[in-house]
Amino acid sequence: MGVIPEPTIERLLLLTRFLENCGKTVVTSSEIEARTGWSSNTIRKDISCLSGELSSGNGYAVDSLKAAIESSLGLKEPRKCCVVGLGRLGSAYLNFPGFEADGFNIIAGFDSSVNRVEILQSPVTLYPAFKMGEVITRFKIELALLCVPAATAQIAADKLVAAGIKGIVNFAPASLHVPANVTVRNVYVVDELRALSARLPKE
Amino acid sequence: MGVIPEPTIERLLLLTRFLENCGKTVVTSSEIEARTGWSSNTIRKDISCLSGELSSGNGYAVDSLKAAIESSLGLKEPRKCCVVGLGRLGSAYLNFPGFEADGFNIIAGFDSSVNRVEILQSPVTLYPAFKMGEVITRFKIELALLCVPAATAQIAADKLVAAGIKGIVNFAPASLHVPANVTVRNVYVVDELRALSARLPKE
Repeated sequence: MGVIPEPTIERLLLLTRFLENCGKTVVTSSEIEARTGWSSNTIRKDISCLSGELSSGNGYAVDSLKAAIESSLGLKEPRKCCVVGLGRLGSAYLNFPGFEADGFNIIAGFDSSVNRVEILQSPVTLYPAFKMGEVITRFKIELALLCVPAATAQIAADKLVAAGIKGIVNFAPASLHVPANVTVRNVYVVDELRALSARLPKE
Repeated sequence: MGVIPEPTIERLLLLTRFLENCGKTVVTSSEIEARTGWSSNTIRKDISCLSGELSSGNGYAVDSLKAAIESSLGLKEPRKCCVVGLGRLGSAYLNFPGFEADGFNIIAGFDSSVNRVEILQSPVTLYPAFKMGEVITRFKIELALLCVPAATAQIAADKLVAAGIKGIVNFAPASLHVPANVTVRNVYVVDELRALSARLPKE
């Protein structure tokens, strides 16, 4: 099995959430198409990138399809994560309860203020920012939640990349430049507000 | 022009971000298809829901298409918003700089702790939670960022709905039940971590 193309990965991730919420044991590609707008052909091609028998004769068995996506995308493997920037947002994520069930283990927090690192109460070990490289390398941390202000986001991202981080969730309203082997996901609350706005009654 | 179907709204929102980042003045439906996986037919049907001449002979003019989406979805209209729950996450959003450029105006913050409302420094007027109904109605606030813990998210959502809120961005890992005329967008950082995880090198 070769490398799964980028747009296919994105659709398969959306597909897992659809499968979790569809309330059925079998779905057809036309049901998926009706919900997502992806052509049947696209859906079949995406699913053909997965390993295992996932016959589409009478539709796909939801559980098997979900398991095949999780396995092919490596979603079941435990991942070590860190939080960078322990202001309000970052310290909120140190205490966020929803990560562990999905295999994400926050094992370090970093802040440029040594004082903040010392006084902040946290279930996670905290370090001053200058220890980022050492700690990330030592614990083989793969992913980072980047919660610093926009003005320092690129500098922090550069340090994360140099330390070997492979993926960054970026909460700063700044677009980050990273090498091709590092992935950035931007969380823009503004996009969620736009999505709500689009559904308000028109005057 | 009738009501725009739900999946079309979702795709048009994604399409605006694609248009903003495509770096071109004209795009064809096959370029959009290559990037999104939506069939040309789906793309044409979605765009036919918009008002204005958006001929697809040699492709779509990016600026006109973006403007047509923004206008049809009402994305350019200013919207009044509030933040509910002023813990770490909520108080971070009181100070978030990225909302105004997109027309979102945070005009109130609420918390069940009167003490917190009194001591928190904020550019936004803060109120104790029992004033939610009164303030939301008086200022005609349409949208809410819901930043309370999962255990109280439904109770807070019920109060928002009763006060006339039409859209909620939900940060709590809890699924909310709201009437059909209210929209909820869930922000799950876990989904972003999964998306990073899917792109890590496989062992």
